Amino acid sequence: PTLPKFPSLSKPKTPLRNLTPLSAVSIEKETLISERPHTFLREADGGDDGSVRSRFQRMILEAQESVCAALEAVDGAGKFKEDAWTRPGGGGGISRVLQDGAVFEKAGVNISVVYGVMPPEAYRAAKAAADDQKPGPVPFFAAGISSVLHPKNPFAPTLHFNYRYFETDAPKDTPGAPRQWWFGGGTDLTPAYIFEEDVKHFHSIQKKACDKFDPSFYPRFKKWCDDYFYIKHRGERRGLGGIFFDDLNDYDQEMLLSFATECANSVVPAYIPIIEKRKDTPFNESQKAWQQLRRGRYVEFNLVYDRGTTFGLKTGGRIESILVSLPLSARWEYDHKPEGGSEEWKLLDACINPKEWI
Amino acid sequence: PTLPKFPSLSKPKTPLRNLTPLSAVSIEKETLISERPHTFLREADGGDDGSVRSRFQRMILEAQESVCAALEAVDGAGKFKEDAWTRPGGGGGISRVLQDGAVFEKAGVNISVVYGVMPPEAYRAAKAAADDQKPGPVPFFAAGISSVLHPKNPFAPTLHFNYRYFETDAPKDTPGAPRQWWFGGGTDLTPAYIFEEDVKHFHSIQKKACDKFDPSFYPRFKKWCDDYFYIKHRGERRGLGGIFFDDLNDYDQEMLLSFATECANSVVPAYIPIIEKRKDTPFNESQKAWQQLRRGRYVEFNLVYDRGTTFGLKTGGRIESILVSLPLSARWEYDHKPEGGSEEWKLLDACINPKEWI
Repeated sequence: PTLPKFPSLSKPKTPLRNLTPLSAVSIEKETLISERPHTFLREADGGDDGSVRSRFQRMILEAQESVCAALEAVDGAGKFKEDAWTRPGGGGGISRVLQDGAVFEKAGVNISVVYGVMPPEAYRAAKAAADDQKPGPVPFFAAGISSVLHPKNPFAPTLHFNYRYFETDAPKDTPGAPRQWWFGGGTDLTPAYIFEEDVKHFHSIQKKACDKFDPSFYPRFKKWCDDYFYIKHRGERRGLGGIFFDDLNDYDQEMLLSFATECANSVVPAYIPIIEKRKDTPFNESQKAWQQLRRGRYVEFNLVYDRGTTFGLKTGGRIESILVSLPLSARWEYDHKPEGGSEEWKLLDACINPKEWI
Repeated sequence: PTLPKFPSLSKPKTPLRNLTPLSAVSIEKETLISERPHTFLREADGGDDGSVRSRFQRMILEAQESVCAALEAVDGAGKFKEDAWTRPGGGGGISRVLQDGAVFEKAGVNISVVYGVMPPEAYRAAKAAADDQKPGPVPFFAAGISSVLHPKNPFAPTLHFNYRYFETDAPKDTPGAPRQWWFGGGTDLTPAYIFEEDVKHFHSIQKKACDKFDPSFYPRFKKWCDDYFYIKHRGERRGLGGIFFDDLNDYDQEMLLSFATECANSVVPAYIPIIEKRKDTPFNESQKAWQQLRRGRYVEFNLVYDRGTTFGLKTGGRIESILVSLPLSARWEYDHKPEGGSEEWKLLDACINPKEWI
């Protein structure tokens, strides 16, 4: 028997999507589709022209392709399962998930394109300029790639990366108002154990990508990353950082598109060599339990603080795609404290007191 | 080596507690103490007089004692570990946690007494009366017992209960303003598999406790429970409900104190017989995995929606006590759907479409 035979399981129309207060951003309900489309852009957007929207979409589609290919190659056994969806008014997404592979417990690589409407307050807050005009709701376009990779081996680190592009149309009743655009994103590493050479390698690749564009990028985005992935109630960062930036628009738009592309292209060289090196390291039960405790912290950060996750849950995004970032399994022990000076303690120390790795 | 030898592990003074904006409730940092005190009430409160504060504190201390004794008895192997703490300006708490017992994976039974100050907005919102006077910050008193019990066996349900009493002093610069008080709480059951007789037994005991006081209580608080433990982004309740009420002050204060006492005394007869019956039921790996998936939902509810948890994390309560509600382990599979008509499907259906059990 399949689900349609049991109609009571169909969810009652949730108030979340239909009754979202006008003051909040909301996203239309998605429809699963059987074949991935060529583009998620509205025809009115010119389809595959040379616009930044269109080139950013191409970039994330290609990054999804190449990252998934590299992950399948290093896993050796697991294959990505693909789900694609569209939304009535345009936009959609493709989730690719590899679960219970040889190397990866759970690896998700999602892309999505969203056409939405944000309340003018959000728009005004975002552009941080205090115009005294009262604009109406602001249509926006957002596209991004988002990925979390959880390996099985406790010595192989979790990786997260996300690159996104955001554009507003002019507010509906103030056609003269300026359109805004931003880039955001980052790549960060979350090991359960520190191998200094791995962390240095990872940060060096991030720095190299940054340095091609601006020498101030790496130090600035490294700190931003340490500040962002902060589990306030624990006084700990989620992991050992990397780079993070948001609302970036004070550089040339073409330059930032190239920078985001360079960052996305750096994921494979930054991460795969570490996985190759650590995927078969022997481990014991207590090391596995420590990894699981750190995954508990990962869950705490994502559900309590992460903007993408909390925003997605509130606006009615595709839940399974949003929560694919959560690990296959996680653990919470009461009042767990690693023994002073132990390898577990060293990791915790580096999460509490972020270090310079290069 | 112990932690004090490694000074870099001591957390940098978190901005959370010292720089909490004045508009938010904040709680002083706790100090662990080696012996539990006789009372957490301030001396000015009259210590062990007949006030509602004092009698409510006695009730939760006794409930903690009797519930823990019953849990240790049914577990047979695990013992509760006790941590007690005080706060400089009065108040404190006692956490009792049994971890990795024979029957329970993790069982936490906490009591706490808080003296705090709330912003006048919160006070005015709470009493729902639109006085036009502008009172200053409002000192408040809160005491409660809070417990989550996670058994190992996937056929043995998780239980949560919480009973709390809340009182405000007169706002600091409006001594004439009325003092307010409220009761809140509830007991609810979260199984991974439905045994109708268990759920009926559980709800009957809740109804019996309610009916002693007011025939409208059970139907009203049963529905309130279904509404409260709602995981919006899933369109599912966390479990199969029970009773829940909050901000209750429109009855005689003595009556509500007796009602809360009756509810707390009903925990053991409502829950222990179910545990006795299910703790040794044979199970397979896929049943254990389903339990773990449902525990993932438990984590989602508690970290994203639960008022006590999110309030505690924001105000600087004792983190380990707040998060003892999280299961020892939990699981997230991408896009998991139980087979239609299966036992797993039946549980999910009852979480999506709450049922009348008696």
